[in-house]
Amino acid sequence: MFSDERAGDYLSNQYKYVEYFTNWRHNGLIEKKALELHEKYNFKYIIATSESDIERAAQLREYLNIDGQNVESAIAFRNKVVMKDILLKAGIRVPKYKKVENPLDLVGFVKENGYPIILKPINGAGAEETFLIQNENSLEDALKNTGFREFEVEEFIEGDVYHIDGIWDGNDFLFVVASKYINSLINFRDDSIIGSFILPEGNLSEQLIRYTKEVLIALPTNSTIGFHCELFLTPKKEIVLCEIASRVGGAKVVKMIESMYGFNLQEKTLHSQINKYFDIQKTIKNKRNYEIVGFLLLLSREGFLVDIPRKLPSKKIIEYNLNLKNNRQYNSPKRVIDSIASVVLYGDNEEEFLKEIKEIKNYFENMTLWKEG
Amino acid sequence: MFSDERAGDYLSNQYKYVEYFTNWRHNGLIEKKALELHEKYNFKYIIATSESDIERAAQLREYLNIDGQNVESAIAFRNKVVMKDILLKAGIRVPKYKKVENPLDLVGFVKENGYPIILKPINGAGAEETFLIQNENSLEDALKNTGFREFEVEEFIEGDVYHIDGIWDGNDFLFVVASKYINSLINFRDDSIIGSFILPEGNLSEQLIRYTKEVLIALPTNSTIGFHCELFLTPKKEIVLCEIASRVGGAKVVKMIESMYGFNLQEKTLHSQINKYFDIQKTIKNKRNYEIVGFLLLLSREGFLVDIPRKLPSKKIIEYNLNLKNNRQYNSPKRVIDSIASVVLYGDNEEEFLKEIKEIKNYFENMTLWKEG
Repeated sequence: MFSDERAGDYLSNQYKYVEYFTNWRHNGLIEKKALELHEKYNFKYIIATSESDIERAAQLREYLNIDGQNVESAIAFRNKVVMKDILLKAGIRVPKYKKVENPLDLVGFVKENGYPIILKPINGAGAEETFLIQNENSLEDALKNTGFREFEVEEFIEGDVYHIDGIWDGNDFLFVVASKYINSLINFRDDSIIGSFILPEGNLSEQLIRYTKEVLIALPTNSTIGFHCELFLTPKKEIVLCEIASRVGGAKVVKMIESMYGFNLQEKTLHSQINKYFDIQKTIKNKRNYEIVGFLLLLSREGFLVDIPRKLPSKKIIEYNLNLKNNRQYNSPKRVIDSIASVVLYGDNEEEFLKEIKEIKNYFENMTLWKEG
Repeated sequence: MFSDERAGDYLSNQYKYVEYFTNWRHNGLIEKKALELHEKYNFKYIIATSESDIERAAQLREYLNIDGQNVESAIAFRNKVVMKDILLKAGIRVPKYKKVENPLDLVGFVKENGYPIILKPINGAGAEETFLIQNENSLEDALKNTGFREFEVEEFIEGDVYHIDGIWDGNDFLFVVASKYINSLINFRDDSIIGSFILPEGNLSEQLIRYTKEVLIALPTNSTIGFHCELFLTPKKEIVLCEIASRVGGAKVVKMIESMYGFNLQEKTLHSQINKYFDIQKTIKNKRNYEIVGFLLLLSREGFLVDIPRKLPSKKIIEYNLNLKNNRQYNSPKRVIDSIASVVLYGDNEEEFLKEIKEIKNYFENMTLWKEG
């Protein structure tokens, strides 16, 4: 079962039964159809790879009494307030936070904590509808727009942002790797790129992984999951949770890891989930192919795309993909994955790698032509 | 503070300070402004007369530590699941019901209880977005449209619908009267009218009022409230709750009661709320002016309104109001109060009164001209 946005992907060649649905995120006919198909096919597993399907898949599993992540676990990884309630109780450092169910909750949080603060949908994904509130003006914008849906507000944590990706079997990592974002996700609308790169092995990487392990031990998991954990490192070198999801990282995380280690993290996660005798350690090497591998997303903006470079002037490119629309009409990015192009590349050391990224960014900005409207 | 839909009402002549807001139901700037105005005016009371403001007013009261209905009480009267949880525990007959947070909750309820069922927003008002689900087709329509917002589903109760209106001081009625709807609210979209009339004093009226008293005793109330309670009377003469609200009845309920008793229920409710020494019994007579008083709403439909009668051929009319739009372009009614005209009228007995209503309905339908589009 797929969103109709994927109707052009010829998926029926790859699956026994394919059906497309409009309005995927809010269409309850998907659940109804899943129950009907279960009558016929008797599903053994229900797999969700997208953040917004995590809870729905868990609800279906419980309804049909099927193994895999249950609703309690799904909610702990999806609901940013439940998540932090659990971690706070486990003594893990999280930002000051509060559930926002009405405007007074938000105004009260500002009164107690001042600016800046971050306001997020309580179960959003991809930094969609995430507001950085820095002053009374942006507070009023948020109050006007967020209505009475459930949000979470938290203090703004200064520092670099890292992401830890891997597979967790409920007790330990089956695989884990730490990476660093090249800019802050919260400000992604202000820059033309986002991206990250895998950290060299060493102290910092180990610290981040140790913190992530504490988080995963504290949260309820009744099955093997892929995970994507985002952490702040403050100027005082304190690690603070941003958030954690029970699915494989999006954007080009999978391709980045594949380039570095030679295996597909999404595929290995699925195998670990559907076969309890699957021994991932025997199928992958933890040996790295490069010193550094990273990716860049080149973000869309509002307007008509006139021209975009077909090649980039760098010898370190592993993959360069264009994400072009037929009508070439784009909007400013709503989610971090709304990109017009992506690059996966390697480097020999961090300094040289970051220089390379800057050059690619400048080249791309200069060579990409937009027309207003 | 008012919705900008009322900007034409010259309210600034009637109040010391008037401000209008767009997007009233979802605009958090209203709360922020209320806090700022409190700094200046030091509010003694916060009054909400509209169903959708009940919780917001209670939240503001608690935030500002002001007397009046608190959040616990507001939620019990607003959230149809919390309401029924409390009443069920108190041993009061309510329909079978279930909270719907995702499509499986709804499908599961159908599997257990079959059709027909009623699906309502968990805190809706005016029968907005209320679905009567009679078969798999209408189930699929609902699943497609209701998404993952919170709903309540309940069994469909066969029978006549009554409404009990009055003022409750937390322990007893300050005023109470029972009325009967002339048709079922749930089907209001299928008929061209809705309406109700005050029941004659007697057995049925007393039974309905006694049931309502049990409901009001069971629900938390920390202050004097106006209330509007809707009850089913089944063919087996069993009384079952439809729902209850902690505000004065809408449509023409206030005008109907005023015609019958000579006082304004909204005004007396306010006085009871803001003055604990106010003795309503001394300011009203419970003596009735007529045998029967009732009201009719003549509902809008989709199209351009060409002509509508300016007078009705009946000698029993107390009030006939047109609710005309400047552009005369109407939609089919979304809420029960989306009417193009209203009538308040009296009668000498029920039979004659219902005949009169039927004649008015026919006359109105014949004399009102619509053009498509």
